[in-house]
Amino acid sequence: MPECKEERIRREAERKRRVVGAAMGREAADLVLKNASYVNVFTGEVLTADIAVAEGLIAGVGSYFGREERDCTGKLVLPGFLDAHIHLESSLVAPAEFTRAVLPHGTTTVVTDPHEIANVLGADGIAYMLQATEGLPVDVRFMLPSCVPATPLDESGAALERGDLDGFYSHPRVQGLAEMMNFVGVLAGDESVLEKLAAADLADRRIDGHAPDLAGSGLNAYIAAGVRSDHECHDLKDAIAKLERGQYIMIREGTAARNLEALVPLLNEKYGSRCLLCTDDKHPGDLLETGHIDAIIKRAIGLGADPIAAVKAATLNAAQYFGLHDRGAVAPGYLADLVVIDGFQSFRVEAVYKQGALAAEHGAAKPFPAPAVEPRLTERAHHTFQVRTLTAKDFQSSGPLGVVGMVDGEITTLDAGRAEAADAAQDILRAAVVERHKGTGHIGLGFLRGYGLQSGAVAASISHDSHNIIVVGASEEDCAAAVNRVVELNGGIVVWNGGRPAAEVSLAIGGIMSDEPLETVNEKLEAAKAAAYALGVNQGIDPFMTLSFMALPVIPTLRITTQGVFDVGSQSYV
Amino acid sequence: MPECKEERIRREAERKRRVVGAAMGREAADLVLKNASYVNVFTGEVLTADIAVAEGLIAGVGSYFGREERDCTGKLVLPGFLDAHIHLESSLVAPAEFTRAVLPHGTTTVVTDPHEIANVLGADGIAYMLQATEGLPVDVRFMLPSCVPATPLDESGAALERGDLDGFYSHPRVQGLAEMMNFVGVLAGDESVLEKLAAADLADRRIDGHAPDLAGSGLNAYIAAGVRSDHECHDLKDAIAKLERGQYIMIREGTAARNLEALVPLLNEKYGSRCLLCTDDKHPGDLLETGHIDAIIKRAIGLGADPIAAVKAATLNAAQYFGLHDRGAVAPGYLADLVVIDGFQSFRVEAVYKQGALAAEHGAAKPFPAPAVEPRLTERAHHTFQVRTLTAKDFQSSGPLGVVGMVDGEITTLDAGRAEAADAAQDILRAAVVERHKGTGHIGLGFLRGYGLQSGAVAASISHDSHNIIVVGASEEDCAAAVNRVVELNGGIVVWNGGRPAAEVSLAIGGIMSDEPLETVNEKLEAAKAAAYALGVNQGIDPFMTLSFMALPVIPTLRITTQGVFDVGSQSYV
Repeated sequence: MPECKEERIRREAERKRRVVGAAMGREAADLVLKNASYVNVFTGEVLTADIAVAEGLIAGVGSYFGREERDCTGKLVLPGFLDAHIHLESSLVAPAEFTRAVLPHGTTTVVTDPHEIANVLGADGIAYMLQATEGLPVDVRFMLPSCVPATPLDESGAALERGDLDGFYSHPRVQGLAEMMNFVGVLAGDESVLEKLAAADLADRRIDGHAPDLAGSGLNAYIAAGVRSDHECHDLKDAIAKLERGQYIMIREGTAARNLEALVPLLNEKYGSRCLLCTDDKHPGDLLETGHIDAIIKRAIGLGADPIAAVKAATLNAAQYFGLHDRGAVAPGYLADLVVIDGFQSFRVEAVYKQGALAAEHGAAKPFPAPAVEPRLTERAHHTFQVRTLTAKDFQSSGPLGVVGMVDGEITTLDAGRAEAADAAQDILRAAVVERHKGTGHIGLGFLRGYGLQSGAVAASISHDSHNIIVVGASEEDCAAAVNRVVELNGGIVVWNGGRPAAEVSLAIGGIMSDEPLETVNEKLEAAKAAAYALGVNQGIDPFMTLSFMALPVIPTLRITTQGVFDVGSQSYV
Repeated sequence: MPECKEERIRREAERKRRVVGAAMGREAADLVLKNASYVNVFTGEVLTADIAVAEGLIAGVGSYFGREERDCTGKLVLPGFLDAHIHLESSLVAPAEFTRAVLPHGTTTVVTDPHEIANVLGADGIAYMLQATEGLPVDVRFMLPSCVPATPLDESGAALERGDLDGFYSHPRVQGLAEMMNFVGVLAGDESVLEKLAAADLADRRIDGHAPDLAGSGLNAYIAAGVRSDHECHDLKDAIAKLERGQYIMIREGTAARNLEALVPLLNEKYGSRCLLCTDDKHPGDLLETGHIDAIIKRAIGLGADPIAAVKAATLNAAQYFGLHDRGAVAPGYLADLVVIDGFQSFRVEAVYKQGALAAEHGAAKPFPAPAVEPRLTERAHHTFQVRTLTAKDFQSSGPLGVVGMVDGEITTLDAGRAEAADAAQDILRAAVVERHKGTGHIGLGFLRGYGLQSGAVAASISHDSHNIIVVGASEEDCAAAVNRVVELNGGIVVWNGGRPAAEVSLAIGGIMSDEPLETVNEKLEAAKAAAYALGVNQGIDPFMTLSFMALPVIPTLRITTQGVFDVGSQSYV
């Protein structure tokens, strides 16, 4: 039962009474970081004081005593970091596992767009993620997926109309509408698109953008429609044009896309206050090896950014943009989300406090309970495959089909001509996308060149943005077997060879996230990659990530969909 | 009947469609400011472009055509100015009249605290002001009065408890809780005070502060309780201590208090983004002669401030603080609240646009209708006096009473001893405060020295903060007559001499604002001042404004209240 308003007010007032008492020194603080040098995001200085914490809030900076004290002499204390835009699903693990991974890196708030799971489960996917993040020691905030399905060609698990989204704006952790990728729709004045923007505006929520290289009058129109940020800038000119027109610039440095080096000159006095940091996508290995926002700040400093401008981008600026007035600074009344590091250059996170509680130390998160998700949603999330058992016949074609030509290190493709049959020796592989959400039986067939597989097949239920099953194989038999195994797992990545799985990663939550620990998922994923490379996959290609983009019918040149090979340039099936 | 949500969304989407069309150049803009040099508050630069306006919003900056065009070659275009804190009642005119006065100065938004009328009418006073400002071409936003009555000693017209305020947070023009003057209550952990703060926090609204010279742990506690701004700073040290702890600093430059010169060094790169501008009080003559926010910006520039930092304080910063995401910048999607000036040095406002409509030009506001206030509230606001006809006897005392000693140019007072009778020749005047709200018949008696009146009496229904009738006179007869005349007028300022009014200003709205035009009120006020000075009032004293503070029992040393002369130092009646 929701707590009544009067009760909430009384409880909040009582909390304030305790904070005031600690600030006044009338009673001991819950925690004091003694003699801390801290970044003052309001003045751009490093100041030194005791930081007193009570009731999860910073009570004061000055001279304090507390029931618990931590000597911070020689350390630097920063406000907890915010990731301004991420798809949590990209970590391939459940949100609690993601939290365990990023907390030790100083992340205390992330703003996620549950675009991936929404493509599988629709509004239930949003609800699932909201429940799966409730009460975590990283505060997970949501932007509502604006473009599900991503294109009219997509056979996704659900379509999210405005009416499906509007109810979520009253949720206390929903901050707005996520990246409006359909900038073509905005510029054309598409009614349903503009109504989604209008609903976010009228709920006084932010609207995130996604409009690489949009400029001139188109950029004016896109921003005038209410889109207030962009995370797709890959050069300074693009970023400054957007920033000048009032957009906040999210400097993205994730697993798939890395724009920090190009955009780091923004982190200065002129532009810095309009910049945020984000990762967009973080894959398991990258999370474990590189870290999270801490690594971006450290790298920015290494690239010559003003350290305080970089910290502000990860803290106060992001809080301001999202209207999170309670965080982003080391100051009285702010959430005691605090990161203790050894210094700007080495930037080693030694301890992380979330609302005043020690949440991570020396690289390890303190244990916390995983949130309970209601049985109906758990059940729904774990049964998302409507695919009958397939046979080689389902993957056979007669007559020429398009060949999608992969390019090393890129997700763009070439038109590699037409083929009639797979021929691994010639690097012509059978490729298909199997619709898996609605039991339509749709299987789009084609061929892939450049992948390099010599035998067997690779299949995965991560394929952007609809997350149907994409498969590539040396033979139709292998394709069928690999897909059948993915379905058997209720989702995952399968490297199939010699009549059995050579390696596999189970992704049973919506077919895109695992129920297992991050380290386990990463080990299995690395083993699967090794198995794929052992079968001949081209070293210039990530066997699963690059493959997952082959189904995305918005990036040139050819793509493979549930309806067959699609030419993005001519917007027609080949 | 309130428009249903779906209808609002459709209408807003349709508006966006038109704005997008204009931004794309598909259709003519409603208005284009051609070749305008404009202040870009995001980059701190002056850029030059056409500014296109559609549906009251800025559609784009670039190269545009419009149904109406204004050549802005050689001009500077700025975002419309915000006054971050004012008591509109201090202008002595109705809000529509205030609007007519400030629009030509570039003000397009003011944030008012209806503290004065709330002391007379309670929640009805807030409701009256909300209705009297609805749809005005200056967007009037509200902070809810936090301290009515101002002190436990005050006999105000109403007391505003938290329950009286909470309902107003759902009003679309209420931004938060106004200046929490009761910092003593905050620091003591007073439950009712903290609950007011908690209610504002839980409504996601801002809380303004008022805590001159509060420092150290007290300042920590006050800010930790949730108070996010201060407009009482009169020196840099105080301002920086507050700014460092996260408060926005409202640099105040009004009629009564002027802190710009002391605080102008804040308007730089280090502190500028955390500064706003406000007036607090603006009296009729000052409004007409000096102007409004434009005059503060101009003076700041004259005092050496970075012009763009000064403009940002009056625009983007204020909008950010109050969560007014739709204004404060010349950028696509922002309200077309635009000010055309001739240049930073001369800073002459040539034209003002409110949501794209020409609202003022060359010093004159375009006509607009005054908002309709419901009859019940109009009636209530115009009948606020519960005072029987008084006689000399009501002002007679026996035995010694305290003498409040006025000080030239100050609102502090001295303890000027005791007296038994008025003696104008010795500058000992009869003084009294007559309770006027509830018919209690309370009349607090005392004496005043330093005012200088030689004959007659001066009475006024403006006296801080309860706005009872304060009167000072050479005789008890004159006092009675002057007060009776104030009551007859349903409020006002009366200079009484020789058995008749020598001059008077009617203030029939709550006894504190006039129904007449600003110019008329000012003329009458100036005439009344002249009459008062002609009767001997000390030239170092404003005959009405200074008098109005003699009833405020929070400033040392002696004050006169409805219960008699009060010693602020010892907190007792003398």
